[in-house]
Amino acid sequence: MEGQVIELAYALDTFYFLVMGAFVMWMAAGFSMLEAGLVRSKSTVEILTKNIALYSIASIMYMLVGYNLMYPAEGDGVIPAVNFFLGSGDNVAADVVASGGDVYYSGLSDFFFQVVFVATAMSIVSGAVAERMKLSSFLLFCVVMTGLIYPIQGYWKWGGGFLDAAGFSDFAGSGVVHLCGAAAALAGVLLLGARKGKYENGKINAIPGANMPLATLGTFILWLGWFGFNGGSELMVSNVGEANAVALVFVNTNAAAAGGVVAALIFSKILFGKYDLSMSLNGAIGGLVSITAEPLAPTPELAAIIGAIGGILVVLSIIVLDKSKN
Amino acid sequence: MEGQVIELAYALDTFYFLVMGAFVMWMAAGFSMLEAGLVRSKSTVEILTKNIALYSIASIMYMLVGYNLMYPAEGDGVIPAVNFFLGSGDNVAADVVASGGDVYYSGLSDFFFQVVFVATAMSIVSGAVAERMKLSSFLLFCVVMTGLIYPIQGYWKWGGGFLDAAGFSDFAGSGVVHLCGAAAALAGVLLLGARKGKYENGKINAIPGANMPLATLGTFILWLGWFGFNGGSELMVSNVGEANAVALVFVNTNAAAAGGVVAALIFSKILFGKYDLSMSLNGAIGGLVSITAEPLAPTPELAAIIGAIGGILVVLSIIVLDKSKN
Amino acid sequence: MEGQVIELAYALDTFYFLVMGAFVMWMAAGFSMLEAGLVRSKSTVEILTKNIALYSIASIMYMLVGYNLMYPAEGDGVIPAVNFFLGSGDNVAADVVASGGDVYYSGLSDFFFQVVFVATAMSIVSGAVAERMKLSSFLLFCVVMTGLIYPIQGYWKWGGGFLDAAGFSDFAGSGVVHLCGAAAALAGVLLLGARKGKYENGKINAIPGANMPLATLGTFILWLGWFGFNGGSELMVSNVGEANAVALVFVNTNAAAAGGVVAALIFSKILFGKYDLSMSLNGAIGGLVSITAEPLAPTPELAAIIGAIGGILVVLSIIVLDKSKN
Repeated sequence: MEGQVIELAYALDTFYFLVMGAFVMWMAAGFSMLEAGLVRSKSTVEILTKNIALYSIASIMYMLVGYNLMYPAEGDGVIPAVNFFLGSGDNVAADVVASGGDVYYSGLSDFFFQVVFVATAMSIVSGAVAERMKLSSFLLFCVVMTGLIYPIQGYWKWGGGFLDAAGFSDFAGSGVVHLCGAAAALAGVLLLGARKGKYENGKINAIPGANMPLATLGTFILWLGWFGFNGGSELMVSNVGEANAVALVFVNTNAAAAGGVVAALIFSKILFGKYDLSMSLNGAIGGLVSITAEPLAPTPELAAIIGAIGGILVVLSIIVLDKSKN
Repeated sequence: MEGQVIELAYALDTFYFLVMGAFVMWMAAGFSMLEAGLVRSKSTVEILTKNIALYSIASIMYMLVGYNLMYPAEGDGVIPAVNFFLGSGDNVAADVVASGGDVYYSGLSDFFFQVVFVATAMSIVSGAVAERMKLSSFLLFCVVMTGLIYPIQGYWKWGGGFLDAAGFSDFAGSGVVHLCGAAAALAGVLLLGARKGKYENGKINAIPGANMPLATLGTFILWLGWFGFNGGSELMVSNVGEANAVALVFVNTNAAAAGGVVAALIFSKILFGKYDLSMSLNGAIGGLVSITAEPLAPTPELAAIIGAIGGILVVLSIIVLDKSKN
Repeated sequence: MEGQVIELAYALDTFYFLVMGAFVMWMAAGFSMLEAGLVRSKSTVEILTKNIALYSIASIMYMLVGYNLMYPAEGDGVIPAVNFFLGSGDNVAADVVASGGDVYYSGLSDFFFQVVFVATAMSIVSGAVAERMKLSSFLLFCVVMTGLIYPIQGYWKWGGGFLDAAGFSDFAGSGVVHLCGAAAALAGVLLLGARKGKYENGKINAIPGANMPLATLGTFILWLGWFGFNGGSELMVSNVGEANAVALVFVNTNAAAAGGVVAALIFSKILFGKYDLSMSLNGAIGGLVSITAEPLAPTPELAAIIGAIGGILVVLSIIVLDKSKN
């Protein structure tokens, strides 16, 4: 009977992990729609191809190389030890019960949750280099990023490497996922320069999104997927403490996104004299990224403020970036 | 061991609540797409801004004021007692076990489920006043509606106010959510009048939706989200009786929506000589709203009939409304 | 206490079934968007009407006739015994506990999972006969297909008919769902001929999709829904063995889809000199269909290869089909 209870907890945690992972996978659709909505219509097909290709390449590369690089048996703290190919995942019931519930979910459900994270990091790059990078170069970079770069820096924190040893804290991947993606994106943007036609003859030309319903849909998809992203990063739900933690993460994630939208709306009204849709979409994402570093510590009210700061930073960044190019 | 079983039930109910809540949050995207698809293309950006803004404002206002208004410590049955700010949600394991499982889910998971409901009520208003109301007035009304109006009337039933004391029954919010939203919408529409160009010189001008794939997507999103809306309103899933109830609610919700579509299709074929897409989308929503008052009592066959009546009423209402304006 | 543990397992399995079923229901939106994106814009409204109508008709017919045909009390192995109307679903707790957990989920949650499968089979037909078949004929066929044809052949395997007795294996419906739908689709296509304008004067005219973002969205929706389709087909999650199995199915489903995309991309680059978006979308679906026959046996690496073969077959089929018509 005791074994049965332990098995039930294992099953609930595994199921929770898989559902949260499916929500994160859904973010791939969110990035696709957001980016397809915000580029010019002549670039739509290319950006869609990039997005479905990057998700697929990430799934394959992380399975073949990345996962075992990121969570190695051993390592020296900077360079992980490599052991190729995914395990068979045949954890047996006896092990789980014998461990008294210490092994608390299926190893493959962990892999599933991790693999959809890789694609998120890569999606950030895809959005940044939209309309600036050749498709084949992008796909080649995708192989390197999802097979090597992401896993190695992920190992530093989540695989027990030197950052983890140094006490670095990153709940759901503000650093491991978003900063990693953003750093690669920034490098790409610096190399590739601005989009043709964006800054010409000392003038800034706003390039309006071709399809705002798609961009809005993409933002809502990301918002929904983020419940899985942050909520699943608690890694466990099967007792009162963990269940309360997951609930708080859901509430805070929602509050931060809402805070980002409201702040971006008010801020754009003050600065530009109108409520701007694309600013408010960016505000939602700014709020979501902001809370991802630590969605468990703040109260919901504080989470909304953290999100609001993220939302304002996004609007400010756009202005500063445009100013600095002029 | 007994404590462990109680904790598992608590965890399962909390997780169920959060997943159902995420499905309801997804309805915000459904309303956005449905409304963006049905307005003229010149109004697309404004209706999208309204939708993401209202969801965000609802999330903030309900957190700051609404939730504690709606579920107060005490009240006189009509005006609830106010206590601001959301609780910290730190229900401790000991309390749960000590209560023998009477506290059966995380308080914050309840808040999460409730907060997405508020946005649903407000979305109904947004659809009704589409193309008729200034954005800033709408946002101001949204603050009042989600912070005060919705919570006070919600308190009457779900917070233990006078309607609840009088034995009023509302399983998932046909009254508390849909009628509340619809009443506000009707008041708005009466004040604002018809859309410019809808009724001119004694003629009725149908205003066709600009983007029917978006409207269809929105309807499917609402259909999916409604499983969370009704299914989560059972509030518990962790024993055989509750699990069966949730399953019946899912089946009935689906049957009612399907009944609404089939009825609207047949009815529009008889009346207009063709199977009409926007009538069938409206039929789905009519069916879903109809079953929301009580999705647990009827058999699936009866649920389909209830939905069909809802679907026919929608088509009839459009005809009668057009007639009465002429 | 033992009864409580059995009830918890029953509740978890029922909840798992309902969530997986909701994911499969979501595939109806995926087929709608994929098909609406790939037809010419003049056919958009008709294909959308078909899709929402077929899902609704399938829900009604399978409830009234199909389910009880497919899972009859008895039958001779080819023709099932008919007993109309859905059961009331009032399995009582006592039965479950008395059976020692042998009845491991709500009968209605099984119905919910099954009913969304029927719509999937019918959606395959809808895609194939797009732009070739009158709406009313299609709807009539839908009544017959979802009420009779699908349930009878489904009974052969899943209802315990002669195929099941013969040891035929079909994990999640490669045969029962996809082959059934495809056979009906092929019959329809042979009767109806090619789309007007597709093959003229010995020339092949590619008919490009009108709306590639919609088609991409549809593919991502199907990808997400497929986790429910295959993951739910394990039918149980509440112990260590079952939880591991569901996790493996999720990982393999994702790997196969990714393999299909990558293979179709590389193959289309070699054959046509460019990475083709619609080929990669078809590759994803080819990969997903391929793994559906047995997503539990292979390792993730093998699943990716199975998916890749599916992806290549899709591209090859298009070429061969075009060649053969010339």
